[in-house]
Amino acid sequence: MNFFRRVKERAEQTHSWVCVGLDIDKAKLPAHLRGEKNAQKAFGLEIVRATHELALCYKLNSAFFEAEGLVGYATLRELIAEIAQRRVPVILDAKRGDIGNSSRQYARACFDALGADAVTVSPYLGRDALEPFLDREDKGVIVLGVTSNPGGKDFQSLECRGVPLYEQVALKVAAWNSRGNCGLVVGATKGELFQRLRRIAPELPFLVPGVGAQGGALDPVVRWGATAAGIPPLINSSRAILFASDGEDFAEAARAAAQELRDSIRQAAAKTPRGAFDETLED
Amino acid sequence: MNFFRRVKERAEQTHSWVCVGLDIDKAKLPAHLRGEKNAQKAFGLEIVRATHELALCYKLNSAFFEAEGLVGYATLRELIAEIAQRRVPVILDAKRGDIGNSSRQYARACFDALGADAVTVSPYLGRDALEPFLDREDKGVIVLGVTSNPGGKDFQSLECRGVPLYEQVALKVAAWNSRGNCGLVVGATKGELFQRLRRIAPELPFLVPGVGAQGGALDPVVRWGATAAGIPPLINSSRAILFASDGEDFAEAARAAAQELRDSIRQAAAKTPRGAFDETLED
Repeated sequence: MNFFRRVKERAEQTHSWVCVGLDIDKAKLPAHLRGEKNAQKAFGLEIVRATHELALCYKLNSAFFEAEGLVGYATLRELIAEIAQRRVPVILDAKRGDIGNSSRQYARACFDALGADAVTVSPYLGRDALEPFLDREDKGVIVLGVTSNPGGKDFQSLECRGVPLYEQVALKVAAWNSRGNCGLVVGATKGELFQRLRRIAPELPFLVPGVGAQGGALDPVVRWGATAAGIPPLINSSRAILFASDGEDFAEAARAAAQELRDSIRQAAAKTPRGAFDETLED
Repeated sequence: MNFFRRVKERAEQTHSWVCVGLDIDKAKLPAHLRGEKNAQKAFGLEIVRATHELALCYKLNSAFFEAEGLVGYATLRELIAEIAQRRVPVILDAKRGDIGNSSRQYARACFDALGADAVTVSPYLGRDALEPFLDREDKGVIVLGVTSNPGGKDFQSLECRGVPLYEQVALKVAAWNSRGNCGLVVGATKGELFQRLRRIAPELPFLVPGVGAQGGALDPVVRWGATAAGIPPLINSSRAILFASDGEDFAEAARAAAQELRDSIRQAAAKTPRGAFDETLED
């Protein structure tokens, strides 16, 4: 089934727009886990066990696993398999992008070798670089649009033919979305951009990092985040959930943090007139 | 030692500007190797053994190894180690790029876990995304500028504040090059851009894919490729070397193809007035 249709159906079941970000930084793991043979995996499995009922989806940041070498790369695959078994959609946050010939191999790596349902990709190399991903109709292809970091403005905000570069990206990705399998990364720290981006790309689902530790506000995300067809924004929170406690209760604390974010989103939605109508948060 | 200084010294020893691209596509391996337990590794080791005296450096395309899952990821590390043992500089062509927090992990993955001397990165997330790479003074950080694929024009050629986006990228990367560890990817298929890019970024080394199978011409690369300080362009050839023969003589054929490219470059250099002076190709 189409990735974003799966996401929408799951939002209807869970009333959650929370994407749990598994940026599992080994240096931040609770002390009692550090003796484990594979602490990253042990931690990840516990987090998934504790949060999966509250997760719209998971997003695994490839960097944190690649940094641990072969063992980390194996852990990445194992955690994806664990999440898939629970039938929760899983995004590999890998920000890949290369020329067509190599992109075909990255698509195989992300979707087949690692088993992800969706992947984040960079727009810089243009359409033929994304084609091998777009050809996989059942998979999600989420293109970097506006990122949440300070350096995002270095290029993304440059005025290109009268509009910022990120708008050029949004327009092109919307045009490439003929199979309904594209999404756009829009950082919550750029709340002022949501209305405009939703207007120029009404059918493009948004993956929204930057709430929580990075300080983005929920209101504009809730108001403009859903597509015209009611695909909700995938609101990612990583550190605020994963490291809610550094004690032995880390998994319960993570569950509580995920629940709190889900409920904050529902509350924000209840009092915010939504720009694109959507019912997934209502009982 | 600084990566590009190493490259320059090696060019003086080998009279070669050839970067051998290890895009080891399993589907293209010689038939007699397909029965091997790890054909990708067996092929790569033979290629390195046959070509290392002619290689200015190697570039391993991460995509082709990631596509083979864990085994491929292990092969990537093993081939890098093999090349490092022969003291040839090695670039991991991974086109990574993420926000600072995650980029730090990618820098660990590429330089420490995999052991590369340099890495290709995407500019889209801006300066703070590159900082953890730039902080490694001895390592090379080669930023995508103008790529060799047709879709490159989708965004790279957009006019941004009066110049194409790739010029904005070249200018910023030149400004970030205070430690002398930055380079720029400039596709050989865009030969008409070399003079201008060399003028706006006289000290920025170029990694040049796209000669050979992709059809880029050597002349502008030879003329404008070297920096003002004499760091030669890293002229990559992958398929034309790796798959010069699909028979049992593949390694000798690869060596012959690498030698032919090295000699073509020297001949082109001999008859081309060079824009930035350089002596590495002279006996």
